[in-house]
Amino acid sequence: MDFDRYDRIRPIRWEGDHLALLDQRRLPAVVEYVQCADSDAVATAIRDLVVRGAPAIGIAAAWGAVLAGQAVQAADGAQALELMTPALGRLQAARPTAVNLMWALARVRRTLLASGSDWLNVLAGQARSIEAEDLAANRHMGALGAALIAPGSGVLTHCNTGSLATAGFGTALGVIRAGVAGDRIARVFASETRPWLQGARLTVWELLQDGIPATLVADAAAAHLMKTGAVQWVIVGADRICANGDTANKIGTYSHAIAARHHGLKFMVVAPSSTVDMDTARGEDIEIEMRDPAELLAVSGQRTVAEGVEAWNPVFDVTPAELIDAIVTERGVVERPTVQGMRALFAEGGA
Amino acid sequence: MDFDRYDRIRPIRWEGDHLALLDQRRLPAVVEYVQCADSDAVATAIRDLVVRGAPAIGIAAAWGAVLAGQAVQAADGAQALELMTPALGRLQAARPTAVNLMWALARVRRTLLASGSDWLNVLAGQARSIEAEDLAANRHMGALGAALIAPGSGVLTHCNTGSLATAGFGTALGVIRAGVAGDRIARVFASETRPWLQGARLTVWELLQDGIPATLVADAAAAHLMKTGAVQWVIVGADRICANGDTANKIGTYSHAIAARHHGLKFMVVAPSSTVDMDTARGEDIEIEMRDPAELLAVSGQRTVAEGVEAWNPVFDVTPAELIDAIVTERGVVERPTVQGMRALFAEGGA
Repeated sequence: MDFDRYDRIRPIRWEGDHLALLDQRRLPAVVEYVQCADSDAVATAIRDLVVRGAPAIGIAAAWGAVLAGQAVQAADGAQALELMTPALGRLQAARPTAVNLMWALARVRRTLLASGSDWLNVLAGQARSIEAEDLAANRHMGALGAALIAPGSGVLTHCNTGSLATAGFGTALGVIRAGVAGDRIARVFASETRPWLQGARLTVWELLQDGIPATLVADAAAAHLMKTGAVQWVIVGADRICANGDTANKIGTYSHAIAARHHGLKFMVVAPSSTVDMDTARGEDIEIEMRDPAELLAVSGQRTVAEGVEAWNPVFDVTPAELIDAIVTERGVVERPTVQGMRALFAEGGA
Repeated sequence: MDFDRYDRIRPIRWEGDHLALLDQRRLPAVVEYVQCADSDAVATAIRDLVVRGAPAIGIAAAWGAVLAGQAVQAADGAQALELMTPALGRLQAARPTAVNLMWALARVRRTLLASGSDWLNVLAGQARSIEAEDLAANRHMGALGAALIAPGSGVLTHCNTGSLATAGFGTALGVIRAGVAGDRIARVFASETRPWLQGARLTVWELLQDGIPATLVADAAAAHLMKTGAVQWVIVGADRICANGDTANKIGTYSHAIAARHHGLKFMVVAPSSTVDMDTARGEDIEIEMRDPAELLAVSGQRTVAEGVEAWNPVFDVTPAELIDAIVTERGVVERPTVQGMRALFAEGGA
């Protein structure tokens, strides 16, 4: 299938001596790359959400490490690591809880310790590999997920899990791209995803760039949409997948899953195996991050809610495995996930 | 119970020679009344959404008719009606599909035809009656609904069904006021209600005025909120209730109802009997009004979505009777509504 046709956006571009990052804060009004000439500029861009999405953050950090390397002179990787440690620390501190950021920088440190005089080339090659592996994983997941979908289906997605959040193609949005490319998906709906509106600002923009028509709906309209029969699958990403298949993802995912089951529709989670955490038994063990209530009190910088009002603003919710029909990773698909089914694919540990 | 303590807002004030309408477009940033000196000013205010909410629109129209009467000289009601007909037509055209507007103006016409030389006093008395009946109905529904709620409960409401939408006290929000006054409700949550944000802009402001602390949540966070155990009842209003209990209400209501059932929570619909339409057999017979997709493409006047993106923007959804635990009207309560249960209370026709 011609996946390239549906994969035109590259949010992270290595330009030989600097890194260009598509500024996601300004989309869709302005399409503009932030030019990062050194690793601190990359750290700032990660911290300020120029780049977002777990895989994309990891890739940006790997290139940030290359920029840190370009700024030092060292005889071998171990010496380079010593000289680069402050800069790598600042990269890691940019989003202290981001698993992919930690993972990418740990890989940088291991590689440096094992490298000789060509350590800088090795580091650049590794950044290219991390990027290429992510893109390949997404295209593979796309094909695996699309194969589950009957031709002519309508799908609903939530938040942004696309090229913008990854090296390209996307996770849940990769399945949607592959499904469109393979004539399985006939209609795409995206929910707004309050409070940050990633669906409204990013997902429908991204699909538009690839010529995939998508229809925006309010989060609250999803159940009614399902009732109309326009949708056969809900397809979402994941922030963490537990050993039993319970899945933490953007707030609103759980609501879509309940409504999908109520209407007899299918629900698919798409994420790289690095998202699977076999050390977390089940969803109840995940602490849900709470964000600033202010995100609900103003829209586009304009205050919409009276002073003195409180808001409750969880970032994620947990969709229990029993509401999930398929978990799609680059290692394979777990249908109707259970502890046994998850262990069969991820016994070696996912993360 | 001291209901007055929790009923301080009056969105419609008759000032003897003009009508003052609380401008709901500017809430909560600005609390300001629009002064309507003649019936055309009232028609404009209705059309421009200065006043919204079915009962409130009906009351405003009744006072608009009084202003139209003050502008003519007539020996009796029939002659006044003739002279007032153009002005009444303009009032009715302000929101052509609003049932309560039609109902109030039909009542005005009947009253005029039956009145003698004191027709203007009769008309003013009738406007006062429509207002007083609505307030009394709301307080009665409040008491009936609150009686169903166990002490110490948390509740979630959607959209705005309060004093702002009625003569005062509100329908679903009236039950919440009564529940707080009677120490049955310990915690109130309100969902934002995209795309118009009536929950965020109006409901939490209104509750704040009455000293009832309420917590705002994103529509998409409702299911996760229910899972935490913080809520025992979802309480909403209605735009139309069918003969079998199926209920059309603001988009997002259906989603809350499905999630409530999934978590074993209770779901209450509160509306005056004028909302019951025994001539509509069931929800499938209701045509859902679609609004301008533009409402989803910008927030607070600022474009958030890329040009060329389509949106699907239904105003209402239908919650089937089997997801409803109680329909509360001023005539009484129908628990677990069925055609038989509805007929027992509304056989004479509701509207």
